[in-house]
Amino acid sequence: MNHKLVFRLMGRLLLMEAALMIPSLLVSLIYGEGDAMAFLIAIGITALCGALPAFLFKPSRQDLNARDGLAVAGLSWAVLSLFGALPFLISGVIPRFADAYFEAVSGFTTTGATILSDIEALPKGVLFWRSFTHWIGGMGVLVFTLAVLPKLSGRTAHLARAESPGPTFTKLLPKMGDTAKILYLLYFALSFILFVCLLISGMNVYDALIHTFGTAGTGGFSNYNASVGAFNSPAIEWIIAVFMMLFGINFAMYYHLLRRNVKPILCSEELRTYLGIILICTLGITITILPQYSFADGLRHAFFQVSAIMSTTGFASANFNLWPLFARMLLVILIFVGACAGSTAGGFKVSRIVLLVKSAIREIQRTLQPRKVAVVRFEGKPVQESTLGALGIYLFVYVITFIIGTLLLSLETQDLTSAFTACLTCISNVGPGLNQVGPVENFAFFSSPMKLLLSFIMLAGRLELYPMLVLFAPSMWKK
Amino acid sequence: MNHKLVFRLMGRLLLMEAALMIPSLLVSLIYGEGDAMAFLIAIGITALCGALPAFLFKPSRQDLNARDGLAVAGLSWAVLSLFGALPFLISGVIPRFADAYFEAVSGFTTTGATILSDIEALPKGVLFWRSFTHWIGGMGVLVFTLAVLPKLSGRTAHLARAESPGPTFTKLLPKMGDTAKILYLLYFALSFILFVCLLISGMNVYDALIHTFGTAGTGGFSNYNASVGAFNSPAIEWIIAVFMMLFGINFAMYYHLLRRNVKPILCSEELRTYLGIILICTLGITITILPQYSFADGLRHAFFQVSAIMSTTGFASANFNLWPLFARMLLVILIFVGACAGSTAGGFKVSRIVLLVKSAIREIQRTLQPRKVAVVRFEGKPVQESTLGALGIYLFVYVITFIIGTLLLSLETQDLTSAFTACLTCISNVGPGLNQVGPVENFAFFSSPMKLLLSFIMLAGRLELYPMLVLFAPSMWKK
Repeated sequence: MNHKLVFRLMGRLLLMEAALMIPSLLVSLIYGEGDAMAFLIAIGITALCGALPAFLFKPSRQDLNARDGLAVAGLSWAVLSLFGALPFLISGVIPRFADAYFEAVSGFTTTGATILSDIEALPKGVLFWRSFTHWIGGMGVLVFTLAVLPKLSGRTAHLARAESPGPTFTKLLPKMGDTAKILYLLYFALSFILFVCLLISGMNVYDALIHTFGTAGTGGFSNYNASVGAFNSPAIEWIIAVFMMLFGINFAMYYHLLRRNVKPILCSEELRTYLGIILICTLGITITILPQYSFADGLRHAFFQVSAIMSTTGFASANFNLWPLFARMLLVILIFVGACAGSTAGGFKVSRIVLLVKSAIREIQRTLQPRKVAVVRFEGKPVQESTLGALGIYLFVYVITFIIGTLLLSLETQDLTSAFTACLTCISNVGPGLNQVGPVENFAFFSSPMKLLLSFIMLAGRLELYPMLVLFAPSMWKK
Repeated sequence: MNHKLVFRLMGRLLLMEAALMIPSLLVSLIYGEGDAMAFLIAIGITALCGALPAFLFKPSRQDLNARDGLAVAGLSWAVLSLFGALPFLISGVIPRFADAYFEAVSGFTTTGATILSDIEALPKGVLFWRSFTHWIGGMGVLVFTLAVLPKLSGRTAHLARAESPGPTFTKLLPKMGDTAKILYLLYFALSFILFVCLLISGMNVYDALIHTFGTAGTGGFSNYNASVGAFNSPAIEWIIAVFMMLFGINFAMYYHLLRRNVKPILCSEELRTYLGIILICTLGITITILPQYSFADGLRHAFFQVSAIMSTTGFASANFNLWPLFARMLLVILIFVGACAGSTAGGFKVSRIVLLVKSAIREIQRTLQPRKVAVVRFEGKPVQESTLGALGIYLFVYVITFIIGTLLLSLETQDLTSAFTACLTCISNVGPGLNQVGPVENFAFFSSPMKLLLSFIMLAGRLELYPMLVLFAPSMWKK
């Protein structure tokens, strides 16, 4: 491994993180709630720990192989979260390390699961940082899945292609720098539009910023205990619901839109499936919950919750824990499915589901006509058999990670649904689950080891599993 | 499709079933509890419905293609269960059709899930038939997976090989007739040894027969409400626990043992994994439940329940619904895993898990060394890439069938764990689940449509999904 280069990159990342803490420092100064000093110290520590490796290590080679690339990806999120937890710890808002780390990981991975029970009591600077990590995490994910992963050589590239088998940015633009720039531009622009819409709908600047960060990163941290439901405003709920859905779409689609290239958007199987699932589940849930709401309220809550869960944001407009099991079960399925590849969302991804469904149909047809040769096509292009094979294995790894996590969590709760949805919502980076981890509950009751386990699961889910799992491979650490 | 031949084969099957009802008729005559007439009528109807197609249809061709083979497999179990439900219906023991069909399917698929709440109140002839269907089902499964599936051409054969990648009987013996004969011989011999052991341990002849049928078929119907726990005998629990484990082993192993060929037994990765999982889970559960039992009782109940669930038998020695969630969660995982391919057991199968774990490890290693070529080996032989690919798809189909089933069941219960384990225990042919479908509960509370859905799921699980799912493929029904 090119240790020196990896250390140097980590150092730069920390310097960047220290800079990214400055807006939160400013917010804490504006509101003067006593958390400014915590940010000053956190910025100091982070900058120092970043400056040392960034300037001390002079790598002889400037190249990263696949192994180094994975190490950087895996370490980046883990280390960002480690230093991102400092403001929580130093300010005393979250005194225990495991809690603070869980909250920071939940932020950067854009999960939105929290260990805090009374959010409204916290200083505004800390809350700003908490939500800002979502927005940073969202940017990181976009570049990671649309620009970094496709560049990794060999097999990993297969995975990346399976991930975003639609138009990937590397195919659209030759240079990685250009790709990142256009992605950030789109991300900024969409965030800005959302921010303006929220202001118009009556939110104050602070609340609008917090909810823009949570929506754009498909994270889900709110500064209110009742989440988006606290505003009691159908307009706000509709706006956020629509934007959560939009941030779950492959960003390549917006690039096409920008270039007035409508055909790939209309032809996208993943997009059609994504919107179709949202439509069907919204209608299904609306009908199921009608006895509890008026039609307008039921439809709004159903669409909001479907959009929130499927885009893996996890905001809540209502306590869906009280809905009939059929509606809750649909939401649990959506936690697993997730949104489109190439978005800020997590989950198993719609494109993978589409490919697996096509493979399954072919498999069933093959039992009838064993000699028939059929190629699975996606977005108009034939898919390699090795990609399809890798997809099935990815499903297995997803299921196994999730089962082992649930088993371990079951040491600390007696409710299978709680253990099961806690693990699922973390691996899919959604946020809330059911019962003890429902939308008005939180993850505080788990012990520190379990919070660290869930942090690992959030990181694993965010990085599409392999970059975290290779950390257990002995060959990862050989010279 | 060769309709005439398929009808003729179905007719013969029914004639056989009518003959297989005769022992139950004799039992009902011996005990004289008023159910003899029901068996007479059922035998008459079954024999008549079998004789007509068996003698009327003269097929011009005597060959079955892959499609016909699947149709026969799928229809056999469905039709056997249809006529197998007659004694329940005619005797008035189970007055509703969906209930009777559920009970018959549960019997023939060796699931052991029941809709009956007071089993001890039923006439002995009917109970004998109920358990006898397990024993018939077990025979059918053995021949289906070890002799019929490997004979089907092309792709389906790949699946069969993936299923029993160890020594298959078709490789051991050239003729299918010989294969079936040796399998039946082994099945009879093992059943007889168990029967004698149960008699020695103090059971009466009737109880010993019932529990031999339930164990050999890995079914799990008992004639007592408290299942095996009713005997309150540690000796009986140990005997049944050991034999449940034995019936979960690939029958090819017993053939090797018979021929004093020990090497393939010692080298079998599937067998080693199967026994290893039983050991680890038994120890894990023993430790977890120690606060509730003495060490001897805890170890016995843990081993009994692990063996019962993993072999997909589903007998109960204790109400494991009251155990800590960690123990219950281990049992839920075992419901999914199931036992060895080539046994009478259901579930996803240990061999598939072993292959998927090996593929996953290779996949993770590949992300580190993309150019390294590695072949997955199983039982000493390299496994084809297409087989590994098909395995991942099979997992997906298993998961999807199970998720859709759970979603539909959630229309009739408000407890996710109940809906989820009800569906899982049916697709894996185990029997009991958790909460509302726990070991001292039953499936009576579901509506008739849900019982038919669960019957379909049991059949699908029993036949490794595809033979039931192709019934939905339009090309299945074309001339």
